[in-house]
Amino acid sequence: MEKKGLLIVISGPSGAGKGTICKEWMQNNPDAVLSISATTRAPRPMEKDSVNYFFKTREEFEAMIEENEFLEYAQVYDNYYGTPRKYVQQQLKEGRDVILEIDIQGALKVKDRFDTGIFIFIIPPSMEELKRRIVTRGTEDPNVILKRFSSAFEEINFIKRYNYVVVNDTVEEATKKVDAIIMAEKCRVDRNTELILQLQGGI
Amino acid sequence: MEKKGLLIVISGPSGAGKGTICKEWMQNNPDAVLSISATTRAPRPMEKDSVNYFFKTREEFEAMIEENEFLEYAQVYDNYYGTPRKYVQQQLKEGRDVILEIDIQGALKVKDRFDTGIFIFIIPPSMEELKRRIVTRGTEDPNVILKRFSSAFEEINFIKRYNYVVVNDTVEEATKKVDAIIMAEKCRVDRNTELILQLQGGI
Repeated sequence: MEKKGLLIVISGPSGAGKGTICKEWMQNNPDAVLSISATTRAPRPMEKDSVNYFFKTREEFEAMIEENEFLEYAQVYDNYYGTPRKYVQQQLKEGRDVILEIDIQGALKVKDRFDTGIFIFIIPPSMEELKRRIVTRGTEDPNVILKRFSSAFEEINFIKRYNYVVVNDTVEEATKKVDAIIMAEKCRVDRNTELILQLQGGI
Repeated sequence: MEKKGLLIVISGPSGAGKGTICKEWMQNNPDAVLSISATTRAPRPMEKDSVNYFFKTREEFEAMIEENEFLEYAQVYDNYYGTPRKYVQQQLKEGRDVILEIDIQGALKVKDRFDTGIFIFIIPPSMEELKRRIVTRGTEDPNVILKRFSSAFEEINFIKRYNYVVVNDTVEEATKKVDAIIMAEKCRVDRNTELILQLQGGI
């Protein structure tokens, strides 16, 4: 029986630890693939097309928007970033799980178009901890820090549109939970209609 | 934050391996409890009240039925068997997960009254394998075997009312899946409203 892969969306406020969890999870699941974004920004040294990003010209990107080829996209300053639908669908069709690390706005757009995905919201153990992570992360400008923090705080409201919430106490525990969620989802009755038909047909 | 336990219903046709999976799972989860049934049948040597069963007289049992004290009950020949609601609810309230091993008819009745439970259907790897298990299990009467098998076959239809289906290829793998399902369910957004409120209130 051929099984389609699952789209796993790892999302949450910046500073929650999405990236670390995805990296750790990918190491334990070498058969899965990370979704590759498309962008109009120039490649940095060492970045390769179709590996780090699909690099596109502005015209190419806008043509893809026209053709409805993105699960979601956004413009950030002068550049576009987006998740090409075709790459994700091809991987899923071939039976590979696809993991998509994405901010909350992007995840909600993906959810509108791909409701069979598994939407996991990563949260820090507390808002104090999130603040600490945002503060120690880089910029020293208190206005930027305050803005990031208050946007993270507001975004917690969107958690209700997700399926799961994973508290990132430790990367190890959080990754174990993501693993369990995926294993469990593969056992859901509504994802196993073929198996059930097979059993019923197969005395 | 106080967390309520989960009711985990392990069900499926006879011969699927429910009992072995429950036993294995309990060994790995010493904080969880097995639901204890009530019965009017006489205790066998070594059986203890409130450990193996809650032993009841017929009058006591019927009074409990009147008082709506069962999550489900059934009469089998001359005796009643049932799942007392109070015991299950008390354990859940104290934060312990309760595992209930039960046949399909019983599980469906529990589902009507306790929809927040997690309903897991255990199936054999194939219907041929189920037949083999039923045949090697005991009685040699071909009519009994045929009856058991055809009822197992019909009961597969009820799988749609469950949340999860776990194929019992090996006990180890099946138990791992049950574990994953429970870990995942504890991460479901709708089971974590308190955590979310806490985060939102706690700058």
